[in-house]
Parts: sequence; structure tokens; C-alpha cells
Amino acid sequence: MRPFTDMTRAAQLPQRSVIPVNTIGRLSLYRRLLSDQLATGARQVFSHQLAALAVTTAPQVRRDLMTIGFSGSPRRGYAIADLVTAIDDVLVRSVETAVALVGVGNLGRPVLAYYANRQPIRFAAAFDRAPEKTGRVLHGCRCYASDQMTEVVAREQIHVGVIAVPAAEAQAVCDQLVLAGVKGILNFAPVRLRVPAGLHVENVDLMMALDRVAYFAHEHR
Amino acid sequence: MRPFTDMTRAAQLPQRSVIPVNTIGRLSLYRRLLSDQLATGARQVFSHQLAALAVTTAPQVRRDLMTIGFSGSPRRGYAIADLVTAIDDVLVRSVETAVALVGVGNLGRPVLAYYANRQPIRFAAAFDRAPEKTGRVLHGCRCYASDQMTEVVAREQIHVGVIAVPAAEAQAVCDQLVLAGVKGILNFAPVRLRVPAGLHVENVDLMMALDRVAYFAHEHR
Repeated sequence: MRPFTDMTRAAQLPQRSVIPVNTIGRLSLYRRLLSDQLATGARQVFSHQLAALAVTTAPQVRRDLMTIGFSGSPRRGYAIADLVTAIDDVLVRSVETAVALVGVGNLGRPVLAYYANRQPIRFAAAFDRAPEKTGRVLHGCRCYASDQMTEVVAREQIHVGVIAVPAAEAQAVCDQLVLAGVKGILNFAPVRLRVPAGLHVENVDLMMALDRVAYFAHEHR
Repeated sequence: MRPFTDMTRAAQLPQRSVIPVNTIGRLSLYRRLLSDQLATGARQVFSHQLAALAVTTAPQVRRDLMTIGFSGSPRRGYAIADLVTAIDDVLVRSVETAVALVGVGNLGRPVLAYYANRQPIRFAAAFDRAPEKTGRVLHGCRCYASDQMTEVVAREQIHVGVIAVPAAEAQAVCDQLVLAGVKGILNFAPVRLRVPAGLHVENVDLMMALDRVAYFAHEHR
């Protein structure tokens, strides 16, 4: 009976363990593509159709959906509405995520505008060291002085920090956010941040992105 | 003599072949970190110092710099100014890259502001289907009507296209840019694009980035 028990355990494991970051990324993409499909009136989708929309392969789509324990029918494909719900559960999109923005400047303001009103993300607070910004409300988000961070992060139960300050200030802001209790960082500053083990940092590096395109465009020329 | 010849060929290969996209990304980061170091008066850097700044490992730094054929001294480390020049040569930062932006809206305008005046990138043209934007100059970049794309891309020798239009329009804009002759695409639209083989697409997916942070913040809680 031992091998059977082990197989059962292995089959249950993916739903309980942490899902790899690239899989989470693709699930985020699938979710948006599936919502668009729902809006056009579609009800079922095959893995090869979703793969075409996501510019990936059908086996990759099937592996990703198996990872979250979702299965389709070989003849009818996946039920789109159920799949969206299943992905929402995994991505913590069924509960509100409270986010803090640090840096309400040329980079922070458009970032706030982009994310405003995209449920279930709620920008619960913004911080800036410029005193004239304190007390202002931008896209429904109140701006506080930087020294109120610990208090506001705790009160608003903020778990994610978004850093949009200049490179030279980013590490100090990151340390302050981590001390205040955030569990994940989205970093727009063009540097890399040192954080405690296990805490996730996602870098959106716009200079790197353009450098990479320019290099490959030149190679392709 | 055969093995020796093969080794020589292998040793020369990395400089001539296409460098992997992740290596290009790290070189872009190293370059910025090294420029900051130069500005503080530093002249030499050891691999472990650069690794600490880039939040990576010293062997990774040494591998990356070997890939571009740059070597340091075990006792003095790497000469920073020479290393910046060497990376600039690889990243095509020694020559100007002409870029076109498509979509001068809530997303495109801050993108243009962010990249404005960052040499050697030059936003040579912007395109928008709104007629009232045609002829305007934003951050030094002239806005054209979308149907002028083929003519302007050829005239300005534009090799990179930046897409900042809504999801539903992104594929059509991409097809138009590829037809006009661009060799690389930086895509801010929250979809995936189909392009001819070999043409590089870099996706900056802000929803995916925040979904990933929210997921891992929840796991870490």
C-alpha cells in the first residue's frame, strides 16, 4: 500500500505548496484573457485556444491548471467562469489586498492612476517625504508623511508596498516598509533591494526592459 | 592540435553569439550600479562588491562579465570605467537607438516622460489615433497620425516600438509596427503579442507584477 499512499500525497501536494513565481505570472495572464473571453460570450475554452491567446503551448496551459488542481473535459474543454473563480482563489483575488505606495512623484502618480480601481487591489495609503503632499487624496488614496508609515501600515492592514522613489532612497524606504510589516514589495526604483529571506520582491525595471529590446533589435537587424 | 583549436573557438564564441536575455538584463543593471559607483569616486570594484549591489552572487557576476569577454585582476578587481564602456558596447549603448511610442494616453505619456532624455535612447516619434494629438510635441517627441507609421519609421530609422495602447488594440498596433520595420517591441498592454520568429518582445505587465507580489505576500503572512 505504500506506493499508493505516496502517490496520493504527491497528487495533493501542488494545491498546498507554494506555486512557482512564473506559474503565478501565467495564471494572472490567463485570468485576464479568460475574463475578456467571458465578455465576448464564450463559456468553454480548450487548452490550445488559451495557449494561443497567451502565446504559450497547450501542454504548458494544462500543466499550469493541473498545478492549481483544475481540470477540464477532453471534449468540452474548461468551463471559463469556474476557471476564473479557481484562479481568483489561488491569486488571493477573492480577498482585498491593501497596498501602500511610497513616492508620489513623476513615477508614483501614474503608477497609482494605473492601479486605481482595479479590484481586489486597494491602495490604502501613499507616503511621501514632501510635506505639501501630506493630507492630499489622489485616485482615492490618502497621502501621509513618511514617519507615519508604521502606524498607518498596521492600522490599514497593508501587506504590500510599492516603491516609486529615486534609486538612492529605495533601500531605506524598503527597510522602513519591512519594519512596518509589509510582506511583499513591488519595486519601480532602478536598483536591487536587500530584504529578509522569504519576503518577495518584484522588480519592474523599465531601463532594463528597454535595454533588452534594443539589444535584440540590433541583433535581429 | 584539434582540441586546442576547438578550445580557442569556444573561448571566442561568447563575444560573437547572441547573449541570453537574462544576462543582458543583469548587464543593464550592472551598468547603472557601476555608473553610480563612478559618481562616488570609486575606480575599481571586486565581483563580490558588484554582486552585493546587484543582489546576486560573485560567481554570477564573473560569469556574466566573462560572457562579454571582460576580465579583472584578482588583486585589484575590475576597472569600473572600462567595464562601463565594455557593457555599453554590448548593449548597443554606444550608438543611438531610435524608438517609436504608440499610444499617447494615460500610460504612454508617463512612459515617454520616464524615458525622455535617457541617452542613447531617442524617442523619435509617437503615434496616436486621436487626431487632436497629431503635431504636438511631448518631451521632445513629435506625435504623428497612426497612418503615417510606415513612412516615419523608415525616415527616422526606428528599430524599436513601444506599445502603450489598450489591450484590444495592441495586436493590430504590433502588426503595423512589424510591417513598418521595427525589430523589437516593448509591450505595456496587458496581453501577449504574436510576432514573427526572432523578433524580441519584452512585456512590462504591471497587473502580473502586482498579482505575483500579492500572492507571495499572502503566502508569507
